[in-house]
Amino acid sequence: MSKPSLARGTRDFGPEIMAKRNYILDTIKSVFKKFGFLQLETPAVENLSVLMGKYGEEGDKLLFKILNSGDYLKNVNQKDFDDGASAMLNKVAEKGLRYDLTVPFARFVAMNRHALAMPFKRFQVQPVWRADRPQRGRYREFFQCDADVVGTDSLLCEAEIILMLNEVFKKLKLDNFSVKVNNRKILTGITEVIDAVGKEAELCVAIDKLDKIGKAKVEDELKERGFSESSMQSLQTLFTLSDNNGTALAELKSWLKESEIGLKGISELEEVLSLVDGFGLKEHNVSLDFTLARGLSYYTGAIFEVKAGGVSIGSISGGGRYDDLTSTFGMPNLSGVGISFGVDRIYDVLDELELFPADTTESTKVLLTNFDVESQKACLPILAKLRAFDIAAELYPSNDKMKKQFDYANKKGIVYVLLVGSEEIKSKKYSLKDMASGEQESFTLEQLIEKLHV
Amino acid sequence: MSKPSLARGTRDFGPEIMAKRNYILDTIKSVFKKFGFLQLETPAVENLSVLMGKYGEEGDKLLFKILNSGDYLKNVNQKDFDDGASAMLNKVAEKGLRYDLTVPFARFVAMNRHALAMPFKRFQVQPVWRADRPQRGRYREFFQCDADVVGTDSLLCEAEIILMLNEVFKKLKLDNFSVKVNNRKILTGITEVIDAVGKEAELCVAIDKLDKIGKAKVEDELKERGFSESSMQSLQTLFTLSDNNGTALAELKSWLKESEIGLKGISELEEVLSLVDGFGLKEHNVSLDFTLARGLSYYTGAIFEVKAGGVSIGSISGGGRYDDLTSTFGMPNLSGVGISFGVDRIYDVLDELELFPADTTESTKVLLTNFDVESQKACLPILAKLRAFDIAAELYPSNDKMKKQFDYANKKGIVYVLLVGSEEIKSKKYSLKDMASGEQESFTLEQLIEKLHV
Repeated sequence: MSKPSLARGTRDFGPEIMAKRNYILDTIKSVFKKFGFLQLETPAVENLSVLMGKYGEEGDKLLFKILNSGDYLKNVNQKDFDDGASAMLNKVAEKGLRYDLTVPFARFVAMNRHALAMPFKRFQVQPVWRADRPQRGRYREFFQCDADVVGTDSLLCEAEIILMLNEVFKKLKLDNFSVKVNNRKILTGITEVIDAVGKEAELCVAIDKLDKIGKAKVEDELKERGFSESSMQSLQTLFTLSDNNGTALAELKSWLKESEIGLKGISELEEVLSLVDGFGLKEHNVSLDFTLARGLSYYTGAIFEVKAGGVSIGSISGGGRYDDLTSTFGMPNLSGVGISFGVDRIYDVLDELELFPADTTESTKVLLTNFDVESQKACLPILAKLRAFDIAAELYPSNDKMKKQFDYANKKGIVYVLLVGSEEIKSKKYSLKDMASGEQESFTLEQLIEKLHV
Repeated sequence: MSKPSLARGTRDFGPEIMAKRNYILDTIKSVFKKFGFLQLETPAVENLSVLMGKYGEEGDKLLFKILNSGDYLKNVNQKDFDDGASAMLNKVAEKGLRYDLTVPFARFVAMNRHALAMPFKRFQVQPVWRADRPQRGRYREFFQCDADVVGTDSLLCEAEIILMLNEVFKKLKLDNFSVKVNNRKILTGITEVIDAVGKEAELCVAIDKLDKIGKAKVEDELKERGFSESSMQSLQTLFTLSDNNGTALAELKSWLKESEIGLKGISELEEVLSLVDGFGLKEHNVSLDFTLARGLSYYTGAIFEVKAGGVSIGSISGGGRYDDLTSTFGMPNLSGVGISFGVDRIYDVLDELELFPADTTESTKVLLTNFDVESQKACLPILAKLRAFDIAAELYPSNDKMKKQFDYANKKGIVYVLLVGSEEIKSKKYSLKDMASGEQESFTLEQLIEKLHV
């Protein structure tokens, strides 16, 4: 007999949590579908040849590897063993667990390129695994929820992502959120005009801390990272840009006028905002943030990030435009743009702000009490009739004490309890108790269906 | 650059397959919920201490084990290495992948026993992994779809399982199916009256082949398995039982009259059938099969199995009553009954019998064509309006040739294409083409919403 436990960094999702998670995921999926995205699922287990080398050296370490089945040592000799764990790895493990949804998606596109309707719009909601050190809010098994369009560089897709973000968070009643938008080309443009070409990453890492550590310390860090005095001088413009999107873009245009790529980035951003306006989305919560980077090495155009107001939780959604999703799988130059929703963080935000609707439960609508053999027998056709009208109904399976049956209904969050005793059976009028208000009323079966049927 | 491939025995589910799988799973889930089952999800990754020893020696071998992260050899010395793969296993792997949904469910119940509303009715739809040799219809990663009630031995639960099976397969339009039912206690009773106590397993394995190899060869096999001449003589009754459920039960009752446990099994079965009648389910497709065993060591009461007619595919659903789900986790005497739907096989049956509804697709309802910049601009507010009425709509993202845009709609299974050219923009009447019939008609935006809105 063993005392059971969960593997570190993993979670069970019991019925109550599942109902809330389904509320979030169903909302996001319904928006994805409305925008023409189709669902894809890829296997949890992938060949390590597909996964390794895609997430950097650190990522390779965080991949969960699966031991070859059978005699996993059969190809391992003494020298391999002496060389140690990493040298021996490819002889004992050929498979690993999905680390994100993007690489498996790229593999799928590369393998099915001729069969797919291009541009291919797919969404994917599945767990991923990372051997990170677990901590509050960070798990080793967690869900990603992504939508991507590949096979087009149309900026319409960027605009639609902004629309989707707005629709999802409004549907989730999260009124206080902001969609931050940037363009990688603008970052490149800035490094050009401040004479620090190739240093986008260093620039962004430092400037990202502006809110936290202040301008002086950011400048110290930039100095440490090898930015020259004159680069820093030129950079001042960035700190004084207007809060107004239109004005900021005009100021930026004048600042980056010598950078072709910078101007391209600005015009892309302008086009995206104009398309969003064309959709008639007036309050679109879009704020420009020219220091937004998010995994810079990956993005080539638009970069998105969503933050919720009123809570101190990091970004709840992010994404951007990329140009070579599938080149590593032999299919170069495939442009795409995608967005990822952070399901766990969205859950925490809705929980903290108490935004889950009161009826976010998937529990039974009505429990029929079980007084005795006669009562149970009388309940069967009633139960069948309620279910025929798609009313989620159950009969308590034995004639335990009433208190126990009511406790069951309470614990399970069942909305109504129907009492079917000898009086009720005779009169064919049944007492329905509202578990929240405690009120009790009598109904015929037809009236009951009328009341409970949605 | 690597040529990408799927890990052996795994599959991608592209949009078309996903839509069909969702049709099946949503149908099953809706029935589970209607009967008061709540959803549970457990992690894919479990501690090996939870999984090992639960599926027999063969099962232990088929468990996918996950290599410890970091230096997985750090606790391994030369002697461990010399002792070989199995001896070394517990030093290099502490975690494994879920092998079924039952053991994780048992772990969950044992860990949360005080918080759960008992009887606990849960359903669970998740992938499981087994290092089996892949073959047609057998995968290393596949879905299980289970519902169980634990914490009660009420036979109402058995009756409800028969109801659920009927409702699921009728909803899936699978009219030709049979629910086979047996009771483990009857099998025990038979071994008692034929004087072969403890040989239920051998009896069932042999008799299970009756249809395939005929009675004579079954008797040969029983002889080989050590059944005595007089046991075989007594067993003749089993081969001559009536096809009529009621008559067969009466015959059985007379045959097993000396076996207390056998009679108990018969009365349980009678009670279940009487409850099913009480629900008013007239054509319930239930056929008694006193040789049905299904993982005999596990079941203690009712045993269920569903077969589809008209196809040569094994059972598409199965389950039964058990008495000690959680004793291995320190929680003895928890009785329960469960049913498992074989999603992959149900998919194959519906596919072969062409039972998927023609509109089993989750694709976009209407594609707006993109003629030019003007057309695209005019489309934006139309698109926004359609979506505001929950109509899945998309705009082709660039002004590619019309043929390409129509090909896209065809390939993606989009139902309608809306033409928004300069004429249409002027007249505010848009041409809607039905992609299946080829018919084309003009609509104002309001008429369009009226037509496409469900």
